[in-house]
Amino acid sequence: MGDRIKVAFQGERGAFSEKAAHRLLGADIETLPRQTFEDIFEAVVAGDADCCVAPIENSLAGSIHRNYDLLLESQLTIAAETNLRIAHSLIAPPDVPFEQIRRVYSHPVALAQCTRLFKEHGFMEPAATHDTAGAVRLVMERGRNDEAAIASADAAKIYGARVLKDNVEDNSQNYTRFLLLAPPARIPAKPARRWKTSIVFRMPNKPGALFRALGAFALFEIDLARIESRPVEGRPWEYSFYLDLIGQQDEPDVAHSLKNLVQMADMVKVLGSYPTDW
Amino acid sequence: MGDRIKVAFQGERGAFSEKAAHRLLGADIETLPRQTFEDIFEAVVAGDADCCVAPIENSLAGSIHRNYDLLLESQLTIAAETNLRIAHSLIAPPDVPFEQIRRVYSHPVALAQCTRLFKEHGFMEPAATHDTAGAVRLVMERGRNDEAAIASADAAKIYGARVLKDNVEDNSQNYTRFLLLAPPARIPAKPARRWKTSIVFRMPNKPGALFRALGAFALFEIDLARIESRPVEGRPWEYSFYLDLIGQQDEPDVAHSLKNLVQMADMVKVLGSYPTDW
Repeated sequence: MGDRIKVAFQGERGAFSEKAAHRLLGADIETLPRQTFEDIFEAVVAGDADCCVAPIENSLAGSIHRNYDLLLESQLTIAAETNLRIAHSLIAPPDVPFEQIRRVYSHPVALAQCTRLFKEHGFMEPAATHDTAGAVRLVMERGRNDEAAIASADAAKIYGARVLKDNVEDNSQNYTRFLLLAPPARIPAKPARRWKTSIVFRMPNKPGALFRALGAFALFEIDLARIESRPVEGRPWEYSFYLDLIGQQDEPDVAHSLKNLVQMADMVKVLGSYPTDW
Repeated sequence: MGDRIKVAFQGERGAFSEKAAHRLLGADIETLPRQTFEDIFEAVVAGDADCCVAPIENSLAGSIHRNYDLLLESQLTIAAETNLRIAHSLIAPPDVPFEQIRRVYSHPVALAQCTRLFKEHGFMEPAATHDTAGAVRLVMERGRNDEAAIASADAAKIYGARVLKDNVEDNSQNYTRFLLLAPPARIPAKPARRWKTSIVFRMPNKPGALFRALGAFALFEIDLARIESRPVEGRPWEYSFYLDLIGQQDEPDVAHSLKNLVQMADMVKVLGSYPTDW
């Protein structure tokens, strides 16, 4: 027990983040539920957890900027990533039939991703809770015969509830990318065929600045996997850039590119190098 | 009346999108509430509206990819943009005191942005509705003395409700960028000191592809205001790029840059040139 890796995640047992933790580290880990994103970073800093799992972007809703900010402020680095398909199920206590459901609890964002369910079944009313898995727990505790929850099918298993309908989300192309975050070298890296390195950088505000920054990588034919600009708070016309590149930060070509970027940028922070499935 | 510009927006009267419409076009317009993003595009295509207003990105929640997709599929172009600060107020029927509130209705995303309110006042329970302004209407219709809504202070005015507390959002750096979308040349452009042009393009999947694409603009010293990559659905390793540049698409330098980009890209679509406040 004492040797198992401890992983903090946001939400209650059965949350998508907990599923991502198991996908990243296997079944034999200890998962620690926490209320907020701040709390999962804090759990690692305080030594309660070895690492934490944080959602960073969703294919429909875009980047979760708050977690980028927390990662930037922290000493943690990215140790691994995984892409999880977000499939929502309608879940109720055993023996509660679909037609009888009047109220459906879930996290606000999950409710917003299942608008078709409520349109097609006007007798169901959405009700917000702090958490998808927590909604299943709540419905089981209340034990009413006209209430259900929207959460992952895993949450149904955990709380002894029953899945009434799978895939109630409006859009099946709903993926969330989760990062495993830990103090440097805390989580031993798995051997991998392909690596990704994530960085954040800020360039002086001049035309062609981003072009030159990308030139640092193009010079060495480094492949890019993602780029996003983000305005710097309170400074119009200044931007940070999130960039993911293919390769490990210690490989000579990547290291050279990063050195060149440091030379021309106002700020560069390497968030981590980690194996990627892609 | 017949001469006023008709603008479709998503939500009910008093929605942030309606506020954005007035910010963009002034007080003397006719605003048409619609249920979904699809519906506002459809209203313009069907000729019920001259134009529509769509949120495209939020400073906390990232890009609203659905509206990019609808814009790409449509024949509409961007005629103008505005950045609206999203400030949420707690709103109830007149004479209902703060301490008596037990249930608070709002759109799921708004509820998710006001978690501190619910933590600090454990006696309040969040309840999801389709719309922030619609939540105010609902609370006024029900007329109970223990229910409130979260919406813009404007919605309180429209429905004769009272603001109990302003700025109940967790993070004050909450801005949404709205676009005014119309058939080309339908909305006469205002004279402007500075213009922005938004494009979407797709490059062949090669190292340095984005670098070369940005080179098209760097050659002519065109300033960039935003870039974001987005994976192409079902095609791992292929990306679309959203790019905003400073300038009008007919200016010689911008036109040259776009021609160069067309030459090297698999796809380029100009979403529009429009005045920017920045």
